[in-house]
Amino acid sequence: MEQLEYQEGRTELATLGEFALIDRLTDGFARHQKSTVKGVGDDCAVIGIGKVKTLVSTDTLVEGVHFDMTYTPLKHLGYKAAAISIADITAMNAMPSQLLVSIAVSNRFSVEALDELYAGIRLCCERYDVDLVGGDTTTNRAGMVITTTAIGHANEQAIAYRSGAREHDLICVSGDLGSAYCGLLVLEREKVTFQANPNFQPDLDGFDYVLERYLKPEPRTDIVRLLAQKGVVPTSMIDVSDGLASELLHICKQSRCGCQVYEERLPIDYQTTRVCSEMSNNMLPVSCALNGGEDYELLFTIAQSDYEKLRDEQAVHIIGHITEAGTPAVMVTPQNSTITLRAQGWQNNQ
Amino acid sequence: MEQLEYQEGRTELATLGEFALIDRLTDGFARHQKSTVKGVGDDCAVIGIGKVKTLVSTDTLVEGVHFDMTYTPLKHLGYKAAAISIADITAMNAMPSQLLVSIAVSNRFSVEALDELYAGIRLCCERYDVDLVGGDTTTNRAGMVITTTAIGHANEQAIAYRSGAREHDLICVSGDLGSAYCGLLVLEREKVTFQANPNFQPDLDGFDYVLERYLKPEPRTDIVRLLAQKGVVPTSMIDVSDGLASELLHICKQSRCGCQVYEERLPIDYQTTRVCSEMSNNMLPVSCALNGGEDYELLFTIAQSDYEKLRDEQAVHIIGHITEAGTPAVMVTPQNSTITLRAQGWQNNQ
Repeated sequence: MEQLEYQEGRTELATLGEFALIDRLTDGFARHQKSTVKGVGDDCAVIGIGKVKTLVSTDTLVEGVHFDMTYTPLKHLGYKAAAISIADITAMNAMPSQLLVSIAVSNRFSVEALDELYAGIRLCCERYDVDLVGGDTTTNRAGMVITTTAIGHANEQAIAYRSGAREHDLICVSGDLGSAYCGLLVLEREKVTFQANPNFQPDLDGFDYVLERYLKPEPRTDIVRLLAQKGVVPTSMIDVSDGLASELLHICKQSRCGCQVYEERLPIDYQTTRVCSEMSNNMLPVSCALNGGEDYELLFTIAQSDYEKLRDEQAVHIIGHITEAGTPAVMVTPQNSTITLRAQGWQNNQ
Repeated sequence: MEQLEYQEGRTELATLGEFALIDRLTDGFARHQKSTVKGVGDDCAVIGIGKVKTLVSTDTLVEGVHFDMTYTPLKHLGYKAAAISIADITAMNAMPSQLLVSIAVSNRFSVEALDELYAGIRLCCERYDVDLVGGDTTTNRAGMVITTTAIGHANEQAIAYRSGAREHDLICVSGDLGSAYCGLLVLEREKVTFQANPNFQPDLDGFDYVLERYLKPEPRTDIVRLLAQKGVVPTSMIDVSDGLASELLHICKQSRCGCQVYEERLPIDYQTTRVCSEMSNNMLPVSCALNGGEDYELLFTIAQSDYEKLRDEQAVHIIGHITEAGTPAVMVTPQNSTITLRAQGWQNNQ
C-alpha cells in the first residue's frame, strides 16, 4: 500500500502566492478546442464559435477561511456565494444568465439551515435574472464548502479582458472602495467582544452600509448595462475582489503598462472613514480602499475619446490613467508624492 | 451578535435522501432566461439560443467521503475528478470541450502533491481533448475538496435526456458493470490488512482491471462517437455513477415508464466475479452491477428500429426494454422470476 503524501522535496503551499501557484499548476496544459477563446488568466473563461460567447467562472468559499458562521447569516452567505460568481461575469463586461451551486456540508447543518442558504441564493438569482441550472450536494467531514459556477453571455466585441489597457486610457471604478473590508472589521471587533462577554449586545448601529457591503455584495450589472447604453466598450476590466492595488497590478501586468491613480479621487464612503477612525491601529481609509478587497466593484479603463460619455455618471469615478510600458503602478498623494502599489500593502517611494 | 445555527424544527440531513434534498432546495427557483433549455434534473444543464447547445455539469469530491488518501494516488485522483465531470457530458450524448477545477486544500498538502494532482487532470484533459479554462485555488481547514465543472457542446437534436424513453425501446449499456465497486472492495480489504500490520505487503496481483476501473474511470466519448457514426440518437441516456438500478429508476421516473432487464444480459467482467467469490459475505456479482456505482458507463435507450445499427457492436450490450407507464422497473432472473429494482438494494417479488 503506497503512502501517498509526498515528503521528499516538499515545498509548503504557503511559500508560493495564490497566483504563482495557479501559474505553476496550469502550466503545460495545451489547448485542443477551437471553441476555447480565453482559458485560465482572466475573470472568466470565454467559450464559443459564434459571435455570442459563453463566459464561465467558478469560486469556492470555505467555512473558517472565507466566512465565519458566528456572524454570517446563512441567507446572506447564499446570496454572497451567488453574487461573487455573478460579479466575475460582469468583470468581463458581460451579463450573467445561469448559475450552478455545489455544496459540501457536514451533518452539523440541518435541512432548515440549507433552506436558508438556498433562500439567499434564490434571492440573488431573482435580483439578477439568473437561472439556477445545476450543482452537486455532498457530505463534508467538517464545515461547509460552497462552489458557485456562473455562466454569462456577451457579444464578442463587447467582452473586456484584463489585457486591453493602452497608454493614456482613463481608469474608472464604480461605487466606493474599502467599505466591505470595514464591514468585516466591525464584525470581527464585535465577535471578540461577544466572545469575552456572551451577554454583551453588539452595537452595529450606524454601520449598516459597511455591514451590507461585506455580507451582501451586489454585482454591478447596472454598470455593464450603462456602458452598453452609452456605447462604451472598456479597453480592460476586472472586478475588485482582492483590493484596488492588486486589481490594478493585474491589469498593468496583462496589458503591459503602468498606471497612475490619484489618492483624492478614490471613492470612499463616510462610514469607511468612521470605522477607520475608531480602530486602535490608526488605519487609513485609503489603505482599506487599496487593499481591503471584497468590494466587487468594477475597475475598468476607457479610451480618452469615451470620456464625455461617462463624465456625468455618478456611479463611475475616474481615478487615474494608464502610463506607458515599463513604468510602475503608482498612487499620487495630495502632497504630490508617489507611492508604488503592491498587491498587499504599499511602500512610499520618497 | 446572532447565533446562526438553526435549532428550532431541526430536520437532520440524513433523514432526506440526496435527490429529495436537491428537489427541496431547488424548488421555487423561477426560470428567467430563454437561453436555459434544461436546468436542474438531468446529468447536465443545457444552455444556448442557437442549434449548438452548451452543456455544463459540476461535481464535488470530498476527502474522506468520496476518496481515501490511504490508497488513492493524487495523480489518479486528478484524473478521476476530471473524468467524472466529463462523463456527465457524455451522458447527454455530447462531447466534452472545457473543464474548470476548483480545489480547497489544507496545508497538509505540498506544492509537489498538487503538481501530482494536476498531472492527473492534465492527462485526462489530453486524452479527451478537453481544455482547462479556469478554476479556483483556496485554503481548506482540513483535507481536500475538489469541484470540477465540465463543459461540452452538442447539436440540439442529438442531445439525449433522461426523459425520452418510450415503451418497447431497447435498453443498452456500454462496457461492464460492478467492476469499479469491486476495485474499491479490494482496496478497502487491503487497507484493513495494512492497518493491522504495516509491514504487510498488499497483494493486488490479478486485480489490475477492477482497480483501474475504480481509480481511473474512463468517460465513454467513444460511445458518443460510435452512436453519431451509426446515425443513432438515443431516446434517453444517463451515466452509471450510482449503480444500474438507480440509473434505470431515474430514466423510468423521468420518462414515465417501467422497464425490464435480464440478469443474464448484464455485462460483468470475470475479475468482478472473482472479487465477489473471495468476499466473506457471499456477495453476488449481479448485486455489484445493480448497486455498485462509479462505473461511468453509458446507459441508454434506443428505438427498436435502430437495433440493426448496434447489434454487432461489442462495446454495447442490449440488456432489456422499456415497458409501459405504470409498470415497475424489474430484473428477470435466469429462473424467470422478476425482481423489483430499488435505488439501493432490491427485493424479490416471488
